[in-house]
Parts: sequence; structure tokens; C-alpha cells
Amino acid sequence: MNALHFIGNKTFDLQDVDLQSPLPGEVRLKVAYCGVCGTDVHIYHGAMAQRLTLPQVIGHEVSGEIDAVGEGVTGWQPGDRVTVRPLKPGQEVAVDNGVRHIGQNLKFIGIDTPGGMQQYWNVPAYTLHRLPEDLPLTLGAMVEPLAVACHDVRLGDVQAGENVVIIGGGPIGMLIALVAKQKGAKVLISEVNEARLKLAGSMGLATVNPKETDLVAQVEDFTSGAMADVVFEVSGVQAGVAVMTQLSRVRGRIVMVAIHAEPKAVDLFRFFWRELKLIGARVYEPEDFDEAIALAASGTLPLDALITQISPLADAKAVFETIDNNPAGMKYLLQCDL
Amino acid sequence: MNALHFIGNKTFDLQDVDLQSPLPGEVRLKVAYCGVCGTDVHIYHGAMAQRLTLPQVIGHEVSGEIDAVGEGVTGWQPGDRVTVRPLKPGQEVAVDNGVRHIGQNLKFIGIDTPGGMQQYWNVPAYTLHRLPEDLPLTLGAMVEPLAVACHDVRLGDVQAGENVVIIGGGPIGMLIALVAKQKGAKVLISEVNEARLKLAGSMGLATVNPKETDLVAQVEDFTSGAMADVVFEVSGVQAGVAVMTQLSRVRGRIVMVAIHAEPKAVDLFRFFWRELKLIGARVYEPEDFDEAIALAASGTLPLDALITQISPLADAKAVFETIDNNPAGMKYLLQCDL
Repeated sequence: MNALHFIGNKTFDLQDVDLQSPLPGEVRLKVAYCGVCGTDVHIYHGAMAQRLTLPQVIGHEVSGEIDAVGEGVTGWQPGDRVTVRPLKPGQEVAVDNGVRHIGQNLKFIGIDTPGGMQQYWNVPAYTLHRLPEDLPLTLGAMVEPLAVACHDVRLGDVQAGENVVIIGGGPIGMLIALVAKQKGAKVLISEVNEARLKLAGSMGLATVNPKETDLVAQVEDFTSGAMADVVFEVSGVQAGVAVMTQLSRVRGRIVMVAIHAEPKAVDLFRFFWRELKLIGARVYEPEDFDEAIALAASGTLPLDALITQISPLADAKAVFETIDNNPAGMKYLLQCDL
Repeated sequence: MNALHFIGNKTFDLQDVDLQSPLPGEVRLKVAYCGVCGTDVHIYHGAMAQRLTLPQVIGHEVSGEIDAVGEGVTGWQPGDRVTVRPLKPGQEVAVDNGVRHIGQNLKFIGIDTPGGMQQYWNVPAYTLHRLPEDLPLTLGAMVEPLAVACHDVRLGDVQAGENVVIIGGGPIGMLIALVAKQKGAKVLISEVNEARLKLAGSMGLATVNPKETDLVAQVEDFTSGAMADVVFEVSGVQAGVAVMTQLSRVRGRIVMVAIHAEPKAVDLFRFFWRELKLIGARVYEPEDFDEAIALAASGTLPLDALITQISPLADAKAVFETIDNNPAGMKYLLQCDL
């Protein structure tokens, strides 16, 4: 079978390797699609070199069918259509506070252990979520990023009728916008890339380009002076952090979705003055996957519009290069069962 | 009657002025004690010059007795012992989000309008809270800062058995510690001033000097590795902001009490990674005053130990100079009925 090994230095090696039997508690998946996550692109750029043991098969946004079931696995059968919640909780420690999805000893499948960019993939059965029969497997590969958005929106406690501003219109920002809108919120996306703005507009989302329009004034106008109930910082840049506190009304919530590798200057006075809340949100819990699958299956979200391109696994090198050269692109899927 | 006018440039003028009749809806208080707040010291230093109209009577931590009742005031009589919640909510606007105690048009009595450093003081009747007969009026003047602490602890949702770390052992930090401890939390105060540490120790609080002991290691030890459920940042300095995220366990809450005039570098990655919450908290709501009065009256908090000095109003100049030269000092009260 084919397995795409990342060997460092922006280089992949597609190898023909032996099929592995699933260990006890595991299933073997026949992978249909594996999406390319921003994290995969970071890995490609060498940004997570200290965390990865190379060579490594990466990828964690997967849909597929069960091919074989290991010893002791119940409730799953070959042919079942599934997606994977790629978290392996480790030994629980006190600092975890009982929160299992981000414990200190968590291993992330596709980074810390082999991922889904291969034809067959063995994963623990407890990571599986069943996909409805009528959900295309292309959209099945969108469930993982959609679950991130569901988690972010849930932790932000977005309510129907609330004003929501999303700073950053990449794939996760767009999905947050769609989920928040589906909950009945009034949503505005701030994004600097014109092609992304156009895409957001085509999906019925209100947009603003903060390089062309004063964002604070625009949010004031959009909300009739009420300002945002919930702001999602998904940009990862200082400008986004600087403006997030300016967009929030009294006791507004700001959800920190972006990964800020370095400390950023934050207007803490504004947190005090308006009693704002900053809420960190990372990955997902099982219920977020359940919600994402239900949403994807409902057909109410234009998820297809977010799939920029579908390419054979063998073309991975070209796909990663395309992503680097196309900041307007959204989700790239690798088809693994060819 | 005597009224202490702040005239700018670290200078006060004690003037003999005419007694004013209370306007409709107001009462006239015979002020017993007025505490000196950190904000008053900032004003004394000229830090809030753009906000104040000089000359101004400042002060807002007051106890006293009702001396006269204005037209339309019901439920209050001369002789009633009271404290004042020094907030005048203004016209509500959309951005206020229905939160009345920190609305955009709020006026703070003692900053934006005349305060309590005078023998008699007219205030709206709606600002009054009744003091129990057996609560000394010295402690009545401690209710306002204690209500700040009650608000902070309430917004931090401190629960019995939780580990709480307070960064900064000034008057508000100490009061937060006492309130959190009274709720059954296990409390540690981090403070650099040895005299304050000694005082905290004498009140039965656990302490650490982060200039002598590694604070993160100390909190790890204090909590048997669990780290803090709630951190209160009361220091107002970058070192406090830098360490607050290091002290929190997964999904820990960090309450922003301090006034950070300038943006500070914040480890936003840690907010994401551990799903931390930052919670801004400012002044108080009526229920916080009720709780503070009940706590003060219960006799369970060593509030007397926090009163560093009681001086006649006429000695205000010397008191402000003493505060400037004695960073170990806690609460200074001005006695206004002499």
C-alpha cells in the first residue's frame, strides 16, 4: 500500500509499505480523503521539527471505511464509514483538571503518531465517529476542521441573535462563521485577502477588509453601535490582537483560536474596563465531532464551497507547493484510495 | 463645615464651606471615615488630570450617618448608619450590554463628582447601603474595597477547595485573599514587599516572595502539582502578567483586577494550549456590597489588621506623603467628623 512519508526539508517520499494488521483495540481504515491542515503546512515548513520524529506520515482530517477490526473491538465492522477524532489522551495528571481532550500527556495522531496520508491507517477504535450513509466522503474529511469550529463556537457560547466578528477568514475562520451563523448569530468576517472575501460573500457571509475600511467603525455600523458579543481571533497576528478588544461590547467574549507562537501586546486595561472575557479554545471534545457530523449531514452549510481542490495522494508535493503559493485557497484534500 | 479640596500638584486645601441641603432624591451624610484608595493616590500624583475638574473633593470609601433626607427619599432617616456605593449610572447605551455598573456613561462619585473627604456629603439615596448597628464605622469605611474583592472573587467563581494564587499583596490583593479563603479556597499570596508578606502571614495567609523563590515551582508545590484554579493579577506589572499564565492549570481562570495603563505582553499560546480564561473585573454590583457588609459584620475577616493608620481629615497632606513613603502600608483612613 502507499504511504506518504514526510522526511523533512519540504520533502515527501511516497513509499510502498506492507499492510499492517490492526492491534487489539484498533481498526484498520481504508482512507478515502485526507485534508491538509494548517498544521500540516507548518510541519512541511519545518516549524514543528522538535516535536516530530522523521520520517512520519502526517495528516489528521480523514474520512474512510473500516477495512479490518482488531481484537476486542466491538460495535464496528468492515465497511463502516467513519471519520477519526485524532486524539490519544495519555495518563491523566493533576494539572489536566479532568479535561481529557487537552491533557498534558495527550498525543495528537498525525503529529506525534502516524497520520492519515496513506492508503490504509490503523487507529484506536475509540477515535472513530460514524458518518451517515448519505454524507459524501469528501465532506467526511471536512468533519475534523468543522469540529474545531463547533468547539470554538461552543466555548464562545454563541447565542441566536448575537453579533459575532471573526478576525481572519482562513478555513477555520470561515467554518466558525458558518457554524455561528447557523446558530442564528449575525456574523461579520474580517479578512485582508480579496479572494477569500469574495468566497465568504458567495457563502452569504458579511465581510470587511480592515486594510480598506476602519474595522472598529465597520463593526459599530454592523451592530448599530452595540459592538460584538463574541469575537473570534483567528488571524494569529498582532493587528488582530490589537483590534479584538476594541470590537467587544461590555462583558463581550473573545475566543482565542489562533496559535500565537510569541507573546503579543494585549490591551488588558480594556479587559478590566469592560469586564471582557478571553477564552482559549483548542481542538475538540467528542460532542463537537457529533455536532460537526450532524451539521455536515444536514446539508445546511456550504462545505463544498470550501474545498478548493482534490488531488491524488501521489501529488502531495505539488499540493503543498500550491498551498504555499495560493493564500486565497481553502481546503485541499488528498484522495488516498487511488 | 470642612471640605478637603484637591487643587492639583500634590496639594490639598481644607476649606470651610457652607452646608448644602440635599437635592430631591439625595441624602446628606455626616461622614465618619473616608479611606484613601490607590485611585486617590493616582489623582494626588496628577495621573488622572484629564478626567478631574479641579478643585475637587475626592474620596469614595466612606462610612457615616444620615444627617438630612431630601425630597422624595423613602426608607432612610437621619441617624441611619450607611456606606456609599459610589456609582452614578448614566444613560444606558447599546454597548453597555445591559451591565449597569460599568456603563459607558457611568460617573464615579469621588472622581467625576465630589467625593467623601469632607464633613458632610450629599449623595443619591440609591447609592446607600445600610450598616449593621454593631459594625464599627472604621470597618464601615472598609466595605467599598471589600466589595471590590467580593466582585473579583465572584467573577472568578472561586469555589471551596480550589487553589487560588493572588499576584500582588496590596490592600485589594489582601482582601481578595481573605474573601477567597473565607469561601474555603486554599490561598497563596505572591508579593515582593517583606512587610506586606509579614502582615499577610499574621492574618493566616500563605505567602511567597517571587524575588526569592521561583513562583511557578512554589505554586506547583503548594498545589501538589495541580496548579491554580484561579489566579488574580493585582500587581499591575509585566512580571505579574508574564507569570499568570504559567500558574494556571488547564481551564484555569485568571481574573484581571489590576489597571494596566499600557498594553502588556501576554502568552496567548498558553491561553489556547490550556484553554485558559481571562476575566476582567471592575468595581462592584449591589450584591457585592451586600456580601461585603455581611462579611465585615460577621467578624470572620481580620479587617482591623489592614487599617494602618487613622488620621484627622486636616492631616490629609501628611497622610498622602506617608503613603508615598511607606509601600508596606495598607489602608489609611481619614476621620472626617472631628
